[in-house]
Amino acid sequence: MEQQRTPSRFPTVGDGSGFADTDRVFREELQLALRNRGMPLEGLRYPITPTGMHYLLVHYDIPEVNVEEWRLKVGGLVSRPMSLSLEEFRKRPARTIAVTMECAGNGRALFTPRRISQPWLFEAIGTAEWTGTPLKGILEEAGVRPDAADIVFTGLDRGVEGGEVQHYQRSLTVSEAVREEVLLAYEMNGEPLQPQHGYPLRLLVPGWYGMTSVKWLQGIEALAEPFQGYQMARVYRYSRTQDEPGEAVTLIRVRALMIPPGIPDFLTRTRLVQAGALILTGKAWAGRLSVSRVEVSVDGGSTWSDARLDEPVSPHAWRTWTFRWNARRGAHTLCVRATDSGGNVQPPEQEWNFGGYGNNSVQRVTVVVE
Amino acid sequence: MEQQRTPSRFPTVGDGSGFADTDRVFREELQLALRNRGMPLEGLRYPITPTGMHYLLVHYDIPEVNVEEWRLKVGGLVSRPMSLSLEEFRKRPARTIAVTMECAGNGRALFTPRRISQPWLFEAIGTAEWTGTPLKGILEEAGVRPDAADIVFTGLDRGVEGGEVQHYQRSLTVSEAVREEVLLAYEMNGEPLQPQHGYPLRLLVPGWYGMTSVKWLQGIEALAEPFQGYQMARVYRYSRTQDEPGEAVTLIRVRALMIPPGIPDFLTRTRLVQAGALILTGKAWAGRLSVSRVEVSVDGGSTWSDARLDEPVSPHAWRTWTFRWNARRGAHTLCVRATDSGGNVQPPEQEWNFGGYGNNSVQRVTVVVE
Repeated sequence: MEQQRTPSRFPTVGDGSGFADTDRVFREELQLALRNRGMPLEGLRYPITPTGMHYLLVHYDIPEVNVEEWRLKVGGLVSRPMSLSLEEFRKRPARTIAVTMECAGNGRALFTPRRISQPWLFEAIGTAEWTGTPLKGILEEAGVRPDAADIVFTGLDRGVEGGEVQHYQRSLTVSEAVREEVLLAYEMNGEPLQPQHGYPLRLLVPGWYGMTSVKWLQGIEALAEPFQGYQMARVYRYSRTQDEPGEAVTLIRVRALMIPPGIPDFLTRTRLVQAGALILTGKAWAGRLSVSRVEVSVDGGSTWSDARLDEPVSPHAWRTWTFRWNARRGAHTLCVRATDSGGNVQPPEQEWNFGGYGNNSVQRVTVVVE
Repeated sequence: MEQQRTPSRFPTVGDGSGFADTDRVFREELQLALRNRGMPLEGLRYPITPTGMHYLLVHYDIPEVNVEEWRLKVGGLVSRPMSLSLEEFRKRPARTIAVTMECAGNGRALFTPRRISQPWLFEAIGTAEWTGTPLKGILEEAGVRPDAADIVFTGLDRGVEGGEVQHYQRSLTVSEAVREEVLLAYEMNGEPLQPQHGYPLRLLVPGWYGMTSVKWLQGIEALAEPFQGYQMARVYRYSRTQDEPGEAVTLIRVRALMIPPGIPDFLTRTRLVQAGALILTGKAWAGRLSVSRVEVSVDGGSTWSDARLDEPVSPHAWRTWTFRWNARRGAHTLCVRATDSGGNVQPPEQEWNFGGYGNNSVQRVTVVVE
């Protein structure tokens, strides 16, 4: 887990501030948008997202893993360090959970100014059925010592970020790590993980933004102090500046999204809708909380009406909402917003933060009815 | 198959010319880049691309198909019109072929000025094993009449493009349609098609750019005259202007791509490489022709050396190339270019065309060696 500083030998993007004040994205951001992928919003029709439609964010490169040689090492402040093969994980108690996952950067490109990074709009979401063994059981086998405070997860993926050469690493407190729904997952939607989703084994932390669910796991280490690695201390913070520590980005904020109705104009994705009654529908989710209300506006957010809510797909996944709309000729802006069981409502515009995280501002869909 | 003109009710992107002269892409292009997806270039390591890593371009929306009700209708100038269920296709003779597919717009965002559309750089590629029944057999069963000239393929996907409401439609001449490698495919990599790849059935035309392999097929119709639909006559043309007919975009042009070596800088994707000997590798393909040579330059294209070529993955798929490089400290620009069996060589810059098609100009990879 070497950490080294590299002088900046890489090109500057934009004016060097790390921000852009227009919505035109740089070549470097486009490169990321073409590698990573959102879920096309019509994918909201599926309770479980087909594997190839699930959103994906890969910080560095997708590693090549020889599963015969691969082992996950469990060490640090544990009584019985372990080194386990995939086969050994498969022999342990298995659990399958449908989980809605979202990237912490979803909505980043909607902030002004825009942090120059992966330029998500609304699509960095998906729900899959993940199968694995509870992390809690593995930590019990290893015997995490009482003086351990933090569990660090290290991926095989390696790159340079903020000038630091690093493996991707994130941590959880022991109390978060032993929650029963936290899995070491080796299957997605009933199949072995595809390479881009973390083959052979990944962490899966329901309710948290996706950066916590470390892919291509190679190490789990118990530490006495909170881990201060790059992905914990330098990024994934709600802060106003680079240096202000701010608050850690953790659980997924409440959000509803709509399947854009009608048919699209190829280039602008503006929707053409036939006049008359139609059902607007989509999904809503709220991290570890539940969704208590979904409202729809067909006048750009001036007035709101309640949508109908179905049961959640699982306690850790989204739920369907529906709303009957009598579409009249003309241009309309449709909006949807959700409220969670803690009383949090999606805002028209989310408060700006330096890294562009947690932007659950209300989706707006432009339609032309004729 | 109604065709209707819609007055432009959709927003103008850019200055209205349809082009941009910088590499900063508009919000509308970003929306497309986040829906569609490239193959991360490290995916070049796999002979067969994992399904979820294959490139994807969807013109309109991914349709929802009830396979119990779905039928493919074969009609027009045929003696025995047919309407077939998926089960009926599965009962017919099956063939599996590994095929390299590429989007005709791959490289579009590298042209100056850049056509405002899906802004591909290099990633719109992939190789899959497709299973289906040869189209030829179906056309024989239906009895295509001798006066038929063109076979039109209609998808279930519907949208607005160039002001026309349309189902996605493309055609092939009868002689192209009855080539033995042309399939009506219902499996990709041994599994039923995922929704985004054309479930339940798609056309698969090896050697041609991807726009020809119509997804979500609902109709096949034999016509006496060449089909003049939007996707044949208005776009997918090598022309200098909107109105000049130019030449049709057809077969995939020769191209080689490299797995960027070393590790990436997160934002710029610049590569950090350790000094010493390493193997550069990637894949090369040439549509219906074969790749006869691959050359590598480690000095930005000033000098070139031959790479080693492996056997193709199939007669319709790419082949691996490898090149041993002794990396010395400093910044380098690596390039790779292929030559096909017709003597065509990838150019440093491809000739500009209005739609931004067929840009097989040489890939350039910036690396920092230390």
